[in-house]
Amino acid sequence: MLKIYRVNSRTKQVTLEERKVEECILGGRAFASDVILKEVNPLCDPLGSENKIVFATSMLAGSGAPTALRLSVGTKSPLTNGIKESNSGGTVAAGLAKHNIRAIIVEDKPEDDNWHYIKIDKDGNVTLENGNEFKEMNTYEFVLLMNAKYGEGVAFAGIGNAGARMYKSASLQVTDNTTGLPARAAARGGVGAVLGSKHIKGIVIEKTKGVKFPFPDKKAHAEAKKAFMDVIMNSPVCGMSMTGTIANIDPHALNGTLPNRNFSGEPISGAQVDKIGVKKFLSDIKENGGKTGLACQPGCVIRCSNIYNGKDGNMLTASLEYETIGLCGSNIDIYDLEFIAKMDHLCDDIGVDTIELGATIGVLMEAGKIPWGDKEAVLKAIEEMYNDTEFGKIVGNGTKDAGEFYNVKRVPVVRGQGMPAYDPRAVKGMGVTYATNPMGADHTSGATAFPGINHHSIEGQLEISASQQVASAVFDSTMCMFGWYAFGFEEETLQVVVNLINAMYGLEWSIEDMMNLGKETLAKEYMFNDLAGFKPEDYKLPKYFYEENSKATGTVFDLDDEVAKAYVGSYLSSMSTTN
Amino acid sequence: MLKIYRVNSRTKQVTLEERKVEECILGGRAFASDVILKEVNPLCDPLGSENKIVFATSMLAGSGAPTALRLSVGTKSPLTNGIKESNSGGTVAAGLAKHNIRAIIVEDKPEDDNWHYIKIDKDGNVTLENGNEFKEMNTYEFVLLMNAKYGEGVAFAGIGNAGARMYKSASLQVTDNTTGLPARAAARGGVGAVLGSKHIKGIVIEKTKGVKFPFPDKKAHAEAKKAFMDVIMNSPVCGMSMTGTIANIDPHALNGTLPNRNFSGEPISGAQVDKIGVKKFLSDIKENGGKTGLACQPGCVIRCSNIYNGKDGNMLTASLEYETIGLCGSNIDIYDLEFIAKMDHLCDDIGVDTIELGATIGVLMEAGKIPWGDKEAVLKAIEEMYNDTEFGKIVGNGTKDAGEFYNVKRVPVVRGQGMPAYDPRAVKGMGVTYATNPMGADHTSGATAFPGINHHSIEGQLEISASQQVASAVFDSTMCMFGWYAFGFEEETLQVVVNLINAMYGLEWSIEDMMNLGKETLAKEYMFNDLAGFKPEDYKLPKYFYEENSKATGTVFDLDDEVAKAYVGSYLSSMSTTN
Repeated sequence: MLKIYRVNSRTKQVTLEERKVEECILGGRAFASDVILKEVNPLCDPLGSENKIVFATSMLAGSGAPTALRLSVGTKSPLTNGIKESNSGGTVAAGLAKHNIRAIIVEDKPEDDNWHYIKIDKDGNVTLENGNEFKEMNTYEFVLLMNAKYGEGVAFAGIGNAGARMYKSASLQVTDNTTGLPARAAARGGVGAVLGSKHIKGIVIEKTKGVKFPFPDKKAHAEAKKAFMDVIMNSPVCGMSMTGTIANIDPHALNGTLPNRNFSGEPISGAQVDKIGVKKFLSDIKENGGKTGLACQPGCVIRCSNIYNGKDGNMLTASLEYETIGLCGSNIDIYDLEFIAKMDHLCDDIGVDTIELGATIGVLMEAGKIPWGDKEAVLKAIEEMYNDTEFGKIVGNGTKDAGEFYNVKRVPVVRGQGMPAYDPRAVKGMGVTYATNPMGADHTSGATAFPGINHHSIEGQLEISASQQVASAVFDSTMCMFGWYAFGFEEETLQVVVNLINAMYGLEWSIEDMMNLGKETLAKEYMFNDLAGFKPEDYKLPKYFYEENSKATGTVFDLDDEVAKAYVGSYLSSMSTTN
Repeated sequence: MLKIYRVNSRTKQVTLEERKVEECILGGRAFASDVILKEVNPLCDPLGSENKIVFATSMLAGSGAPTALRLSVGTKSPLTNGIKESNSGGTVAAGLAKHNIRAIIVEDKPEDDNWHYIKIDKDGNVTLENGNEFKEMNTYEFVLLMNAKYGEGVAFAGIGNAGARMYKSASLQVTDNTTGLPARAAARGGVGAVLGSKHIKGIVIEKTKGVKFPFPDKKAHAEAKKAFMDVIMNSPVCGMSMTGTIANIDPHALNGTLPNRNFSGEPISGAQVDKIGVKKFLSDIKENGGKTGLACQPGCVIRCSNIYNGKDGNMLTASLEYETIGLCGSNIDIYDLEFIAKMDHLCDDIGVDTIELGATIGVLMEAGKIPWGDKEAVLKAIEEMYNDTEFGKIVGNGTKDAGEFYNVKRVPVVRGQGMPAYDPRAVKGMGVTYATNPMGADHTSGATAFPGINHHSIEGQLEISASQQVASAVFDSTMCMFGWYAFGFEEETLQVVVNLINAMYGLEWSIEDMMNLGKETLAKEYMFNDLAGFKPEDYKLPKYFYEENSKATGTVFDLDDEVAKAYVGSYLSSMSTTN
């Protein structure tokens, strides 16, 4: 049996529902979006009692396959006012899978000011513990205290002060596999604010050996897992281990992709790239005693994670990523890797999304509230967020609100969410994804920045984005995106993933069945947004991307609005015919 | 011929369109809403180039009838994101009518930072004048300078710093007839922010004798006007002249209507009422050298306006009104009439809506950012708005944003606009109007607080509100609301209004035709909102009014959501069958 726990944050009741494996197939994003559509009023206040927040493990969690231990967090987003799934590696999905817990659903909202955290002990007992003393505590300190209280190796997914204060950019921080520190994140969409609105600090899981997944056919599983291992171990994605996502900085800067000064489209010089690119990263790692090739989740063989230390040899973050460098670096005219890692650390500690923070600061710089590239002023802005001043709240409430507050003309957001580190005029497929996917400006829910495509032309980009959006809805439900890259592009290897799903759940799925899971999940998400008041014509980028040439590429973003509308509409009509 | 001017704020072109009287029948709100629906993209950014702002005189302006010189201001509101018409007395409609100008429509948005004002000289020439030196000037100083420049008696409708900074609560201030000072306002919906976005300070009209309205039949007009005068002079509304709207403070406080501490529903004591009620008002007027019984617009016989002076004998405002006392007084626990008048003065000077400001401060008090009833802290908050600090912007951006910013539970807004001084649990017809009318929480677009109704019961309130909403769409298009009260309740007197319209425009309207103008205007407004993304289910009050008893009345607001939806839907379907 797999377990689904419901935690009522008002009544403090914890209820368990057990489901047979073959009746508990949905995982990750597919599970979360299904619950949000079926159980949450699309018109509700995201920070009110009607919203829920779902924590769900990937479908392959428990299979023992590498990259399968992904944690999906689903809710109605306070940033986009639409449906949101944000996911993370780290140790929490593993912690849940050890007890065959598929999901924890946090419901309702307390009327008093008492805080709690969800605790899972060695034997898998799920309880709500009083957490008043931790209410105003950031994540690093909280994790250290939990380790002291429950023994080393605690897994944690939860919020810092940003979530407690319901900042719209609040992330859910998750403990990393190598360091045990809350350096990973289900960062986007303000999911941390929703948890904060329910006065729940997070989920704390004691270290344990756990129990096995109840495979219907152990032999079939062992064979399918072996085939899975064979593919992934021989895949070029294992080559990510040396540099992780930072390998993309140099080529994306050259292509005009990496954002520069609030997505101005100005080119980034070679000298600038050298200060934040892969060579500088590797030399810092070497000089300051950092590490690359680390697994963010137990058993990962891709190992794209790293530990980045400051000059003093102390760890700043695990890991430093492309997105953080793009948004908290070039986008705000800062070319200092150690400083960017320090920002990353502070974001992880207070619990905010580094993408949203960098996009917000970009807009505040365009508004003249922070000088371009002024590190001291940026630190002061983050400090104001720590101190919850008015300006600090503005910093914490994300790009869209900051842009409105200061009447900024160019605000790089899509449906309320700040843009990740891909200028949509330079990687048009990413622009198509931002415009048309159900999550707003999101880089993982339809990533297209592959080699071998003319990214400056719109030709064929809707088709590429559309197929990646489906793939993303599948891998966000089953495993890590980077793991998927070992399987996702050929029938033969896709079949290997299907075989493992079939072996776990006693199914006879085809590849088509697996991909249909993605399509159905997307249809549910569009439907939620539709009921929440989004119209097909809302699926577009801010106007200036269509009107102002990027100077780095000489192009504008030119997806036809009607084409985007028709694409989204096709999902909505597929939903209305099937339901 | 009647004149319609279009002012392009980007190209600086001023173009004149002349229309025959019989082809220029629409005035005031009917004119403005017609233009906004036909010419403005409902999905546009209210502060962007696609929005327009319309200044239109009432249909009876130029007739010589008292109360006919009303100025309507229509636009897409940055506060509600829906259609908005806000209107004002004062001297500007008279100034336009003297040149037979029916409307001025300001379009587009400049790309540079140059400011202008619209000037109408003695001969009726309309020009755009450079106004860079006045950009950061508040309204009182600006009007004094304009009087020095163009001679005494300048009429002005425009913005102070709140509008220039595009605060969402920015009003359009209008010069008063008695004092010549910008103490009156088309206050609601942030119309001032739209004018600010176009870098237009306002309209400045030199004093002049002007020309006559081109009546098709002078004799018919003279007769119709005489009949109009006979009715209004003998109407009980002329009794408003002693106390104006402040007569309502005492009975509305007793009924539980007057808001108390952020619409908490707590009763207001007799001792409290005595500090802000009509007796105190009249004794202050007497002691400090103020005046009552004044006409806000030329020739008004109702004369509900007043001049309220401080203890030092200097004028604070003209006039002090019920709404300002309700929102900037009891709603924020302040029981000091002179202090409220001082707030009123500051609001008029910087150009913000006193209703929105009081509702915002109520929410900031509930958030703990300003202590209840702390006058010094309130003054400091307004000072911060003058100084454009972060907190000042929050104060200036209205109730909804402030509530979101501080995660306040009880935020008395409807579709983005702060609630006027009628608790909807105590005057349920007003609640119906807030919920269902196209403008958001608005007290004039369907006022129901008449004697002889059981306001604590929902019984029959939709019908009363619905008929008042139609009446309001008529009088907002033709004349002042208080003038209408002399005519609006009997066939015989309604016919007198119809006769005057017919005489002015060479029409043969029936009473039904006139009321249909109201219905059609409402249908256009609902249609605009529909296209802007509002759904029928958005037409409701904040949830807590349905759930929490007012302690003053023991009642909740209990209009059924489905009934409200059906009511709004009926307007939308009437529109789709006629267009």
